[in-house]
Amino acid sequence: MKTSEHAVDFANQIRSGKRRSLARAITLVESTRREDMAFAQDVLLELMPYTGKSVRIGITGVPGVGKSTFIEALGSHASSLGKKIAVLAVDPSSPYTGGSILGDKTRMQDLSRLDEVFIRPSPTAGTLGGVSRKTRESILLCEAAGYDVIIVETVGVGQSEYEVASMVDFFLMLMLPNAGDSLQGIKRGIMELADLILVNKADGSYSKKAESAARDLQNALHLVRPKYKGYTTEVALCSALEQTGIDQAWKKLNEYAARLKSDGLFAENRKRQLIHWTRRLTEELLLSELWGSEEVGRIWDRQIAAIQQGTSTPVKAGRTLIKAFRETGRKK
Amino acid sequence: MKTSEHAVDFANQIRSGKRRSLARAITLVESTRREDMAFAQDVLLELMPYTGKSVRIGITGVPGVGKSTFIEALGSHASSLGKKIAVLAVDPSSPYTGGSILGDKTRMQDLSRLDEVFIRPSPTAGTLGGVSRKTRESILLCEAAGYDVIIVETVGVGQSEYEVASMVDFFLMLMLPNAGDSLQGIKRGIMELADLILVNKADGSYSKKAESAARDLQNALHLVRPKYKGYTTEVALCSALEQTGIDQAWKKLNEYAARLKSDGLFAENRKRQLIHWTRRLTEELLLSELWGSEEVGRIWDRQIAAIQQGTSTPVKAGRTLIKAFRETGRKK
Repeated sequence: MKTSEHAVDFANQIRSGKRRSLARAITLVESTRREDMAFAQDVLLELMPYTGKSVRIGITGVPGVGKSTFIEALGSHASSLGKKIAVLAVDPSSPYTGGSILGDKTRMQDLSRLDEVFIRPSPTAGTLGGVSRKTRESILLCEAAGYDVIIVETVGVGQSEYEVASMVDFFLMLMLPNAGDSLQGIKRGIMELADLILVNKADGSYSKKAESAARDLQNALHLVRPKYKGYTTEVALCSALEQTGIDQAWKKLNEYAARLKSDGLFAENRKRQLIHWTRRLTEELLLSELWGSEEVGRIWDRQIAAIQQGTSTPVKAGRTLIKAFRETGRKK
Repeated sequence: MKTSEHAVDFANQIRSGKRRSLARAITLVESTRREDMAFAQDVLLELMPYTGKSVRIGITGVPGVGKSTFIEALGSHASSLGKKIAVLAVDPSSPYTGGSILGDKTRMQDLSRLDEVFIRPSPTAGTLGGVSRKTRESILLCEAAGYDVIIVETVGVGQSEYEVASMVDFFLMLMLPNAGDSLQGIKRGIMELADLILVNKADGSYSKKAESAARDLQNALHLVRPKYKGYTTEVALCSALEQTGIDQAWKKLNEYAARLKSDGLFAENRKRQLIHWTRRLTEELLLSELWGSEEVGRIWDRQIAAIQQGTSTPVKAGRTLIKAFRETGRKK
């Protein structure tokens, strides 16, 4: 029904900056219907030449650190400088609401009112891999729609940081102004991902605490291997609420990105991410073909029974299943 | 060079209880040489009919909880009742030593002196999946060698608990007699894995603390979904050092296993584990074939370049790679 001509039309609408088209394209990317997925791929293929030109920023931090307020402040600042901002959220677990962390748009009320800002709540909870694919493809769609800055927000609870760090150019970690606690909860691995650490809520009675937290973090960073040779991860203060330190953070971020670009590391990092992502996606697609294979389904029970009866081993059964799978490869 | 006749001979030596043959077989299972792996599979295939008759016990707990001392005490007790005990260790990370947690045999001096006890340090650190395969196959080898009780020890630091829980009949969690702390560090998910929780070091000045920790744990368990419908996870006290509570733990464990058997849950659980394991192993083997494929290697760079040039997407590239892979399936 949907022809490739439709895909070209649709792609053009996205490129012309129609927000509703962009939103619909992301819905297609998030869909699990085979037809939608195929169409989304056609649209993406049309748009690929127009992707890649944004700065992709990952932002993480534990719940309560003030991510939404910070993104609102940073987004408003960048918007005032003439940038088009898109905000995407990654929330693979969503154990509390079953919904999205940005679902309540009022949380970014000021930002969402701006014309040049696009805010997209997180896709329906699913496997991390699935959310990851959807977010990567949504980044590409936003880029084709002309957004200069793509902010990917993630909750600071483990695995999702690695996923998000592997799809952005710049990873920003928000911390609470609580020296002891702030160091306690962080794994060194997560700190290694950060390009910049901001101690938020550095205002009012928290100012002193925030400064001391920043010092502790700076010291802790000495133990962390730098992300790029010759680069160091800076620690700075900000108050998203009082909108202090936001412009400096934006400046740091841009200087850092500019340095990465002039060192060739920006492009190198993007290529490495692309390779990593293509590998993972290929694996995901292959495994889905494996377990969707009729031939594998047909002999599966017999293989399990053979192991139980002692006439096969899991490894031998695995080899038999794979042989059956690959031998039917040509028919597909 | 190694014929299947060799495999039959070797298998017979293992079945006759030759410890050196068992140790060598585990070394083969742990080997990454293709030849060794193939031979190990032949040996395993010979032995499969003689596997499955032990009770497989997983034991976890944070470093310092006294796992080695406890296993020594439990093993000695079971040995005194005429049981043959094998102890295997899973230590995928080994970040501290790069070696094995049981490498220092003196840690289980008394136990390792017993004739009917076989102790095997953890395989060389590697991917968790790899360690998992080796440990599963080592369990089968120990069973064929006539061991009645297989203890799989794991360090209490996350992912490895899930791996070990998915290969044992009974999962025992050791806790420190420190009420507050003991609850703090545990994720609910890990508690859901436990069939029995033992508060160790319930001796001397710690006795009161241990009792209070046990009460707290018992209360916390009310929030945890039981592993089997109608079953509850018990909390008990022990002192591996003073060897108190060990015989009761052994008794509880056997009663629990007997109940699972009479309810049909023992066999059901084993079958579920076998299916899960065969699935994962098949996936691992398939992905290793994918990335080892000459055809995939031949077109890989071109696919990445096409995405970079905007003439393909990661999903399209993945599909192309998979097609190339499956189409060469018959030639292998």
